Amino acid sequence: MTSSQDQKKAGVGPFVLSIDAMGGDRGPATVVAGIADSAVKNPDIRFILHGPAAELEKLVAKRKGLAEVCEIRDATGVVSMDDKPSQVMRNGKNTSMWSALDSVRNGEATVAVSCGNTGALMALSMIRLRKLPGVNRPAIAILWPSRNPQGFNVMLDVGADIRADALDLLQYAQMGASYARNGLALKVPRVGLLNVGTEEHKGRSELKEAHELISKAAPGSGFEFVGFVEGGDIPGKRADVIVTDGFTGNVALKTGEGTASLIGDLLKEAFAYSFLSRLASLLALTSLRRLKKRIDPRRVNGGVFLGLNGTVVKSHGSADATGVSAAVKLAFKLAQIGFTDKLAARVASTAVPSHDADAIGSKDGTTQ
Amino acid sequence: MTSSQDQKKAGVGPFVLSIDAMGGDRGPATVVAGIADSAVKNPDIRFILHGPAAELEKLVAKRKGLAEVCEIRDATGVVSMDDKPSQVMRNGKNTSMWSALDSVRNGEATVAVSCGNTGALMALSMIRLRKLPGVNRPAIAILWPSRNPQGFNVMLDVGADIRADALDLLQYAQMGASYARNGLALKVPRVGLLNVGTEEHKGRSELKEAHELISKAAPGSGFEFVGFVEGGDIPGKRADVIVTDGFTGNVALKTGEGTASLIGDLLKEAFAYSFLSRLASLLALTSLRRLKKRIDPRRVNGGVFLGLNGTVVKSHGSADATGVSAAVKLAFKLAQIGFTDKLAARVASTAVPSHDADAIGSKDGTTQ
Repeated sequence: MTSSQDQKKAGVGPFVLSIDAMGGDRGPATVVAGIADSAVKNPDIRFILHGPAAELEKLVAKRKGLAEVCEIRDATGVVSMDDKPSQVMRNGKNTSMWSALDSVRNGEATVAVSCGNTGALMALSMIRLRKLPGVNRPAIAILWPSRNPQGFNVMLDVGADIRADALDLLQYAQMGASYARNGLALKVPRVGLLNVGTEEHKGRSELKEAHELISKAAPGSGFEFVGFVEGGDIPGKRADVIVTDGFTGNVALKTGEGTASLIGDLLKEAFAYSFLSRLASLLALTSLRRLKKRIDPRRVNGGVFLGLNGTVVKSHGSADATGVSAAVKLAFKLAQIGFTDKLAARVASTAVPSHDADAIGSKDGTTQ
Repeated sequence: MTSSQDQKKAGVGPFVLSIDAMGGDRGPATVVAGIADSAVKNPDIRFILHGPAAELEKLVAKRKGLAEVCEIRDATGVVSMDDKPSQVMRNGKNTSMWSALDSVRNGEATVAVSCGNTGALMALSMIRLRKLPGVNRPAIAILWPSRNPQGFNVMLDVGADIRADALDLLQYAQMGASYARNGLALKVPRVGLLNVGTEEHKGRSELKEAHELISKAAPGSGFEFVGFVEGGDIPGKRADVIVTDGFTGNVALKTGEGTASLIGDLLKEAFAYSFLSRLASLLALTSLRRLKKRIDPRRVNGGVFLGLNGTVVKSHGSADATGVSAAVKLAFKLAQIGFTDKLAARVASTAVPSHDADAIGSKDGTTQ
């Protein structure tokens, strides 16, 4: 186990991931099954697994070879889905979530993965990892199936904060572009700002202001700004990165998921209708599986918290072993390319004057 | 032709609809084809058709029996998709859109239908029809395919105004419930307020305030308030009416449409992949058609402008004849049940004290 090595450097393995074993809807057995899958596929991954040691040791022992790449850290407390972030911030010190973040805080790992309560995870990440110099509001970015060649677009913020002013939106553009560059291998990502129309005079005042700020910043920040985009462009091909506030982004994400799920169920119903349609569905099985694989949310399981001293991957609470393994894969990729340092460098190089290193954690409201 | 009769009474036909023949992407021939379809299906519909008379007369003459139920009003100007609402308000007097709204204004018809520029149509509707007593912001409501037995949920506002305060959201709840009661035949519609979580402490301050106002108003307003709902509930079954501001609603609507369209295209791709899958798609054709029919946006074509002295149905700009006919069907249904009067009575009976008849068009910002 090499967890004590300094994990800040990119490109040389093994890479240590810090895993919160608790807090998911399906319990720690599912998390252990997921990391075991990942361990088999990527011999360069090492894990620090946080949770009740006695229980985790048994689960890990059942998976061949896992114990050799997995260190267990005892943490008996569990953050539940109903816990309020403020409670967890006050009383969460003995939880597996807190412990998992602290392994990133103290440099044992650069990326943490948790299936737990999103609000609590973001609140704890803010106090344990702290915001990157110059960042006012961290954001949660997700990958959205799209018509672009890379198959996915980045969208942020999908719910870290319900507010975002013009400067926050500029930082989301920079962080989202950095994520697309590193996570989707796009050299010059195209960034769009979500609005209710593409004309420049439309929308709320902070969006017009953000339009101006992002336009000016784009040439020096390694991305192309395509201007305002609409809801239909989130799964579209006009932009690779969609920037919006966490309220709108969260509603859009859940609307898209709900719509896809409704269509999936109606499709099943349509095929179950008659003997002929059931026969057709048998023949169509491979085609439908191919489609399902393309848009399967488990394959892109993982919102990424951006703007912190460390990267946190939030897996879906209901993730099964395949979902956990996908989140681990994403975390591994981000650790491998040294994403945390790259993002920090990018934000620092493009920080606007009033939000320099002195301004960590402050909120002065200026946007110049 | 009976267009001069008073159209304010419900229940007795024929019913006159005022149709803007111009402004749609496919031109007046498509609009005439659509109303001709509707005329065949519903002998109780009469039309006043607005646009360049010479052109419209030729188009109407081609459709057997249409001339007998359709009066043409000459209007040579056309509002294009690129015209700014402010320009149209100043210089739009000779347009077919203006003329179509004036037939509702002067009582010849109770419902107008247009495929034209949404922003201009809303702006003109505000000045020509004026807001209902007590209404601060009119809203655009649409029907969204859902898991509910009635097959659709009502969502508003999807883009009349990018802002909405707590009182506006209360009025949207009342107007949306009235639309669901009359348009979807639900006795006690369930109303949900869109937010990023269902817990009462979540979300923006105006949403918490609106939650309180709607809770108090529900018992006397003939609807049930189910509290906060999330994006996934828009196509879901927790509520029949989803209330939100026009910015969020517009993004959600376009995200849902874009997601459905992406899945449709991926489905086609999946079935075109191999010989076997193409064979399967032939067998599955009926099933897929059944699904398509269930969620075909043309079948529920028509956003409805609520909160005005008169009802305006906004058909999609790219609507084909089937789409126009669906919008006409919706307009006819609303005319038949006397929806304009029912909505006005409902809003008046539940108006909060500070927004009584004196307050038309004013915005005092109070919410008590």
